[in-house]
Amino acid sequence: MYTEDIDHIGVVVENIDQAIKFYQENFNMKLVHYEVLQDRGLKVAFLTGQDGTAAVELLEPLNHEDMNNTVAKFLKNRGPGLHHLAIRVKDIKGALDELKVKGLQLVDQSPRPGARGHLVAFVHPKSVMGVLLELVQEAHH
Amino acid sequence: MYTEDIDHIGVVVENIDQAIKFYQENFNMKLVHYEVLQDRGLKVAFLTGQDGTAAVELLEPLNHEDMNNTVAKFLKNRGPGLHHLAIRVKDIKGALDELKVKGLQLVDQSPRPGARGHLVAFVHPKSVMGVLLELVQEAHH
Repeated sequence: MYTEDIDHIGVVVENIDQAIKFYQENFNMKLVHYEVLQDRGLKVAFLTGQDGTAAVELLEPLNHEDMNNTVAKFLKNRGPGLHHLAIRVKDIKGALDELKVKGLQLVDQSPRPGARGHLVAFVHPKSVMGVLLELVQEAHH
Repeated sequence: MYTEDIDHIGVVVENIDQAIKFYQENFNMKLVHYEVLQDRGLKVAFLTGQDGTAAVELLEPLNHEDMNNTVAKFLKNRGPGLHHLAIRVKDIKGALDELKVKGLQLVDQSPRPGARGHLVAFVHPKSVMGVLLELVQEAHH
């Protein structure tokens, strides 16, 4: 498994438009991507520092009342805040196979399309000392 | 305020030595710094990807029973997991002054020495939509 870098940190918010403005105006971060993920029931926005590549991913559920949506459930149970950590790997399929062999509990058994056209897969927080971990492989690899 | 990049993501762990090994062995991350912060009652370790600069900061309290230690309290109340988000700024003193003017609630009114000899200051999660935010200014600036 080759981990290149921290890709992003996922942050659940109540209102993504307000949150984007908040991060822009208070912390001088710039919006680099915005997307509606219909299949996951989410609006997501990526913001970075002025020189940086690692991002904050803001997440808001499309339907706050849908308790089958893990982000809506998170928001209801815990309120807004830090949600997941994403690391960027070169070969997500190989990485998942390695983690399976090591006995880690995977949320996604195989990579699936995520935000920005990248391939993503989540590893269960039970296997990562309480951290919901996302693997990301960039689309152009 | 000039925000350069995501600096690190703070993760509270039960046992820092086990956690370092876990991140090294499972996610191929490399240990770039380890330090005991006596004044904060913490052991901290920074790990990055193979090519990256943004880090995971693992934090373990020196005394798990000291409920005056916010990290020990976090561990007791919520268990291990994501703790804070740190962004790297060029001028931490100026950044704090700006945030004060904007009415954000600061944990630290002025910068103080943090891990790696950097200057750091925390902003209260109440003012950052549930996220404990750390500002970091690199020592060489």
